[in-house]
Amino acid sequence: MSDYLAPLRDMQFVLRELQLIDSLNQLPGQEDMSGELIDAILNEAARFAQGVLAPLNVSGDRQGARWNDGTVHTADGWRDAYGKFASNGWNALSCPPDFGGQGAPRLVSALVEEMWNAANVAFGLCPMLTRGAIEAIELRGSDELKRTWLPRLVSGEWTGTMNLTEPQAGSDLAAVRTRAEPQGDGTYKLFGQKIFITYGEHDLTDNIVHLVLARVPGAPEGVKGISLFVVPKVLLDADGGLGERNDVHCVSIEHKLGIHGSPTAVLAFGDQGVARGWLVGEENRGLEYMFIMMNAARFSVGIEGIGLAERAYQRAAAYARQRNQGTEIGVQGREKVAIIRHPDVRRMLMSMRSRVEAMRALACEVALATDLAHGHPNDTVRREQQAFVELMIPVIKGWCTENAVDIASLGVQVHGGMGFIEETGAAQHLRDARITSIYEGTTGIQALDLIGRKIARDKGAAAFALIARLREAQLALPDDDPQLASIRHRLFLAINALDDAVNHVVRHYDDQVRQVALGSVPLLELFGIVTGGWQLARSARIARGCLASNSGDAAFYRAKLRTAQFYAGHFLTRAPGLAQTIVEGGDAALTMEDFAF
Amino acid sequence: MSDYLAPLRDMQFVLRELQLIDSLNQLPGQEDMSGELIDAILNEAARFAQGVLAPLNVSGDRQGARWNDGTVHTADGWRDAYGKFASNGWNALSCPPDFGGQGAPRLVSALVEEMWNAANVAFGLCPMLTRGAIEAIELRGSDELKRTWLPRLVSGEWTGTMNLTEPQAGSDLAAVRTRAEPQGDGTYKLFGQKIFITYGEHDLTDNIVHLVLARVPGAPEGVKGISLFVVPKVLLDADGGLGERNDVHCVSIEHKLGIHGSPTAVLAFGDQGVARGWLVGEENRGLEYMFIMMNAARFSVGIEGIGLAERAYQRAAAYARQRNQGTEIGVQGREKVAIIRHPDVRRMLMSMRSRVEAMRALACEVALATDLAHGHPNDTVRREQQAFVELMIPVIKGWCTENAVDIASLGVQVHGGMGFIEETGAAQHLRDARITSIYEGTTGIQALDLIGRKIARDKGAAAFALIARLREAQLALPDDDPQLASIRHRLFLAINALDDAVNHVVRHYDDQVRQVALGSVPLLELFGIVTGGWQLARSARIARGCLASNSGDAAFYRAKLRTAQFYAGHFLTRAPGLAQTIVEGGDAALTMEDFAF
Repeated sequence: MSDYLAPLRDMQFVLRELQLIDSLNQLPGQEDMSGELIDAILNEAARFAQGVLAPLNVSGDRQGARWNDGTVHTADGWRDAYGKFASNGWNALSCPPDFGGQGAPRLVSALVEEMWNAANVAFGLCPMLTRGAIEAIELRGSDELKRTWLPRLVSGEWTGTMNLTEPQAGSDLAAVRTRAEPQGDGTYKLFGQKIFITYGEHDLTDNIVHLVLARVPGAPEGVKGISLFVVPKVLLDADGGLGERNDVHCVSIEHKLGIHGSPTAVLAFGDQGVARGWLVGEENRGLEYMFIMMNAARFSVGIEGIGLAERAYQRAAAYARQRNQGTEIGVQGREKVAIIRHPDVRRMLMSMRSRVEAMRALACEVALATDLAHGHPNDTVRREQQAFVELMIPVIKGWCTENAVDIASLGVQVHGGMGFIEETGAAQHLRDARITSIYEGTTGIQALDLIGRKIARDKGAAAFALIARLREAQLALPDDDPQLASIRHRLFLAINALDDAVNHVVRHYDDQVRQVALGSVPLLELFGIVTGGWQLARSARIARGCLASNSGDAAFYRAKLRTAQFYAGHFLTRAPGLAQTIVEGGDAALTMEDFAF
Repeated sequence: MSDYLAPLRDMQFVLRELQLIDSLNQLPGQEDMSGELIDAILNEAARFAQGVLAPLNVSGDRQGARWNDGTVHTADGWRDAYGKFASNGWNALSCPPDFGGQGAPRLVSALVEEMWNAANVAFGLCPMLTRGAIEAIELRGSDELKRTWLPRLVSGEWTGTMNLTEPQAGSDLAAVRTRAEPQGDGTYKLFGQKIFITYGEHDLTDNIVHLVLARVPGAPEGVKGISLFVVPKVLLDADGGLGERNDVHCVSIEHKLGIHGSPTAVLAFGDQGVARGWLVGEENRGLEYMFIMMNAARFSVGIEGIGLAERAYQRAAAYARQRNQGTEIGVQGREKVAIIRHPDVRRMLMSMRSRVEAMRALACEVALATDLAHGHPNDTVRREQQAFVELMIPVIKGWCTENAVDIASLGVQVHGGMGFIEETGAAQHLRDARITSIYEGTTGIQALDLIGRKIARDKGAAAFALIARLREAQLALPDDDPQLASIRHRLFLAINALDDAVNHVVRHYDDQVRQVALGSVPLLELFGIVTGGWQLARSARIARGCLASNSGDAAFYRAKLRTAQFYAGHFLTRAPGLAQTIVEGGDAALTMEDFAF
């Protein structure tokens, strides 16, 4: 059994040595968000994640959420943990101060979220969904909606959900059929069924605020006829206290591969009586509002991937250190050694670790950019940062979650046969991780977003601006340092590969969109590999500098350098082949006849 | 719910169009193994796999094997299915004719095994283990042991197991501690505990014949002091009927990620009374005997990977054809289409399919070589074929099972959110597949075998002989056919990459074995990708010929050609990067300090 330890030192490296705090502090209102203050927040979050959430991870998996005649019981201890989570103020961390939130920058809340997900991803989903609901109401809700719902969502007294999917409409929201009929009094009656509703029903709080996509009478077909509604589980009385039960009922919950602690509900609206809802913003603009929130949600799911990957890595490393088996290849003698001495076990651990560190640094870069895009006084900077954020959202979501599945699977592999036994715990990470590359838009959907809205639409402007930054960082690596030579060389080739691939997309999105789409997931992977390599190259350069100046913590910097070198030799090497697949991969998958599959 | 359909047409392609039957028929005793006869066997096997085994796959997963006070009940219907399996003669298919077997060539039994594993891998494990036990007794057992145990193991009346692992000795057999004390009457008393014993206890048959590794008193330490014993669950009386219960007891079974239908037992020997065993061959030579069997078992696990991958592919393709969602990119109109029309779904399906077909053709090439190595009249041919088989065993085991995990995971992805719901069935394939790259030697262990015993030991002779065959096949692709151009080009570069990597291993195995070992799993993957590409290149050339000559079945040949083209653009492109990782990947993972992980 391995305990979770929040990777505070690496988080500090990203914040301080990679100088993200410096940029953050230049924002109006964030001047005081010092390293010490952030450390204090991260330390407290680590204590909560390690002490309260991590111990419930296994019980959540084994016991799971249980449905009984419309009610859902979470696993033992979860209600209590949620209560502490809310009362300690964690739910409000990144929420708007006007409604009781603490308004922490995304850079900080991203690292805190990583800890929740590493400790207990099934738990972490609940506040993540609540944040989505808060954002929807905050951005587009009327003042009355905000006053009514936000304070108790921000405090965590109630939780929120996002109700998009219906049986016939998974990723395709144009197919949504849930109806909302105006009652003339400002409210609507909803009719329909939603599936895959995360925390759609539970016993953690006394009320649940559902954000629901539905169509009003006469709405246009397709995505332009979707409206967004607030539909609470329990209606409020005149004083704002809990009143009548609304007609939203949990018909069943799903039996899933993983995240068993998180109930995935089928919800029926207006089956038995009246399911009353309130419009958010204007009619028929629901999808537009969804898109605003979607970027935040997709980023958060990318963070889930990082948290899960970190946890799987820690468990595997701990096992590899304590499990003795076999003798060491290339070493005389028959002494049994810990399996961490076997080169292939080290390769697997480095493959996990190097990606985790690349992902964390990259996600923080994007989180900081989110803060800059919101708060920077200069228009141009805001616009540039926003373009970078939007470009990177599908990469963070797609690459971090695909990595998480692979890393969790490697975690099982490091354990050998024990990894396949559920009691060991490694398999749960794989089962839990497997959903992350599916929900909030599959990797394929992220990749379409990347080639279409994020690259082709601005003719590659944001992507080429990023590539220019990458080239700058590559050139900043001193060319006379043998420790950095392989990183410098591989990153150079990898950036060229990315450049080629982006040019291909820009040139051919209009005339060969199906062929370009065929290379979209490989392109997303290429983006991830190269931008992850960018962050590790920066990290290695700084680590070298710290080592050269004997500024202490040498073991940490040596490890950082090795990690970046490994990544260059094992991941950046993949970039040219991916570019060939994207550019010259052909259209065999398109010309294949459907019946022949 | 998707039914399994044995891929008989592709199997016939491999046997006939790739001309494997022709080579088989040149062997003495195999002249009559005609295409028609093989078809008849495959058709019958398909009926059994589809009609009897596949329907029990889900119930085996849900109900699982259940332990109760030392006994193990398999899922409903399994005992009956096993009875039919044995009485229909399937267990005896590839067994020695002297003891009632049918002596089918490996080429044929490999394809039949693929069907058992595709239909129900948890079931297929049982006869696979029995074959291992039969082989051990046949190869090294005394005439009496053979007479006593083989007929009823061959018929399937009893099943067999392999007892290697102990809690402190997973992959490391040197650490085996189970003791065997000679009783002076030719028998031994065994004491110890074995774990991870597949079908170590069950209710399919009335007896189980355990093959057990143990140490006799005074045996040398390490792997040179291990002996092999037959230890039956039930002893035989003087007439060969079932007599007293032997003291081998099932203490518990494991709670696993997958293959729930297959009981994984902890067995205690000599805890309560006398666990009587009989020596196989000579004392202290058990490991040597194990190695003989291990190649066969490893090949069989590779076949499990192929079967699982085929099944996952079929389920995903069926879902993609029937699930309507979204409109088609690059096509005018708002008509909903089946998701198989989405380029990325096609990419995923082709990624699955192209590897399945590459693996099947490659495994059959190795199976045929096994037959040639046993039965060819010419010494040199036998030696060459044996060298090829031994070289390829770790590749078949490692590459096919790693692919199976990835393919099953892609199968989940094609289903989107539904893939994460257990009822859909896609997740079971992922859970089941996950063990295949672990048991019978992890991928890391296969890769060490590849670089050490299979490449360095003969200075690359077998590998270079294979590379020469690959170059010949590459040159046989006409250079003026645009449909084959990308395959020809990518295969050329991929063979060069493999050549570089093998040269690196041969040159540096002695002086830099730890660095070489770090690249061993990438090398195994490179071997798989290039040799798989070899088979698909051959397939594409033949398909082109058949299309050019209008010999019928054009749709099949067109699909084969597309599949090979896809593989060239999406897998052969990875070869140069893998070679760089192997040759220039550096030693960062080795120089990393242990405590820093």
